[in-house]
Amino acid sequence: MSDFPKSIRILEEGPREGFQIEPGSIPTARKIEFIEALSETGLEQITIASFVNPKRVPGMADADAIVAGFRPKPGVKYRALWLNEQGFERARAASQGKLTLDSKISIYASERFSLRNNNRTTAQEFEYARSVVRRYKEYGVPVNRASVSSAFGCNFQGDIPIATILAIFQQIFEIAQENDLVLEEISLSDTMAWATPLSIKRTLGAIRDKYPEMRLNLHLHDTRGLGLANAVAGLEMGVDMFDACVGGLGGCPFAGHKGAAGNVCTEDLAFMCEEMGIDTGLDLDKLIACARLAEDIVGHPLPGSVMKGGGLKRLRESIQLA
Amino acid sequence: MSDFPKSIRILEEGPREGFQIEPGSIPTARKIEFIEALSETGLEQITIASFVNPKRVPGMADADAIVAGFRPKPGVKYRALWLNEQGFERARAASQGKLTLDSKISIYASERFSLRNNNRTTAQEFEYARSVVRRYKEYGVPVNRASVSSAFGCNFQGDIPIATILAIFQQIFEIAQENDLVLEEISLSDTMAWATPLSIKRTLGAIRDKYPEMRLNLHLHDTRGLGLANAVAGLEMGVDMFDACVGGLGGCPFAGHKGAAGNVCTEDLAFMCEEMGIDTGLDLDKLIACARLAEDIVGHPLPGSVMKGGGLKRLRESIQLA
Repeated sequence: MSDFPKSIRILEEGPREGFQIEPGSIPTARKIEFIEALSETGLEQITIASFVNPKRVPGMADADAIVAGFRPKPGVKYRALWLNEQGFERARAASQGKLTLDSKISIYASERFSLRNNNRTTAQEFEYARSVVRRYKEYGVPVNRASVSSAFGCNFQGDIPIATILAIFQQIFEIAQENDLVLEEISLSDTMAWATPLSIKRTLGAIRDKYPEMRLNLHLHDTRGLGLANAVAGLEMGVDMFDACVGGLGGCPFAGHKGAAGNVCTEDLAFMCEEMGIDTGLDLDKLIACARLAEDIVGHPLPGSVMKGGGLKRLRESIQLA
Repeated sequence: MSDFPKSIRILEEGPREGFQIEPGSIPTARKIEFIEALSETGLEQITIASFVNPKRVPGMADADAIVAGFRPKPGVKYRALWLNEQGFERARAASQGKLTLDSKISIYASERFSLRNNNRTTAQEFEYARSVVRRYKEYGVPVNRASVSSAFGCNFQGDIPIATILAIFQQIFEIAQENDLVLEEISLSDTMAWATPLSIKRTLGAIRDKYPEMRLNLHLHDTRGLGLANAVAGLEMGVDMFDACVGGLGGCPFAGHKGAAGNVCTEDLAFMCEEMGIDTGLDLDKLIACARLAEDIVGHPLPGSVMKGGGLKRLRESIQLA
């Protein structure tokens, strides 16, 4: 009950993971408007673009223009995603000091998903990760994080055993040791929304037993409605860092994106934490305004709840005044 | 982690609390179609109608016709709601043995809400409850439950202190003792969606300390997205009985019912529990079909998640076959 962390930090993924899956084209100026509005909410980190193949992800073809155009707010960390050297070169060229150009070790917990997406077995994934780390070292880019995707289950592989996750963690730490990396966080992603509060607790409990000091991040999807329940399970296991998307961007079943996995909603998570006395550093009213802006930009309703139901602080104030 | 109950039971409120707030008129035949479909899902209890003032709740003016028309399934308990003697007389006349005509002690945790709705202070609420219990005794109607509404917070009163809930419980037990009632369950209702996992744990923890054997039911709303997270907190406190509405009926922000509080969604709760090894006795596919039927009947999207994201059992089977 009192096991919750005193404060958490939410890493905003809306401009990237959220906008990326939208079917229509979003004007660059509106993406920038959204990023700049998010910068005023207290968020300390925002992922703003993907430098990926524009043929495969046409919605992110303007990544360079987004980075060139937005005004960074001092104190906010802006990140981008890239998947290969070419993408990294584009991000570095576009950055002009605006982006945090660190990197991470990325591993798929599901071998079948890795084979489908990257044509690599898990063993080959680790070899590839080693080669990527070596290249970043040559570039002088710090590799200070790791992420494990489909960590709780996969539509192609099924449930992911805890032993698989522990083996992946061990390999990640071996790579870190070989390359003198200091890992600041390891992110576990419930890419396809298989996690439950129980599987979160069991998997994170097993990790905590072996690596009690490692800071963990949870990247949760709300496809089956369990996003916040899973976040609470994470909080109970001491997780104090979450990826999320304002408005629950990243998949909206109401727009006919069937099966698309909406991310856990930033302002819903922030509301819940603040109500439980967990500091988020975020301004709920401003986040709700961003969620409404996002709805306007994508042109369809978003699944976030607090943007419709409202917060409670104002209500409390009005009751006291009455 | 292993504190979850082995099984839970969900009491379906969709035909009553769900349909009741819909703005348009729903044909009686479609309500009956829905009740009969729900009866095939494994649900053991369904609340099917309200015998209340048709001028105040026009959507339930056909309560008598609903009860007269539906075919009860053996083994399923059908309940109705009434708020006064007149309503009870209507329910009794309509029942023809189809309804379970037991009753309960109902208390508002929020005095301001009670004053607004019933023009009674909390002290007057208890006096009223005593008179109601006496009348039911005369009727020969068993009073075997109690419910506490707005138990976690109220839009008119604010946060509800745990001491208030404990005082209400004490009074409820006094009334029970005075009248030789055997209370089978006490329901706590988060009527206006103020609860958080933390407040659920604290309030239920305090109740459990004093009344470890009392069976508790949670009636949760999802207005701020915390429905399932709050349900998990309840499970962790040993709650094994929940009210819920298929599809998340009972308020749909997408239909412009602003501020309307959607109930926690039956099939989402059932999915989550089954995935955590908690038996619900429910058929998820049939529940999802009922949620789709409900969408068709009300004519707008419902907020349930699993009806869009799908369950995992089928997916697991298809993976094993692959």
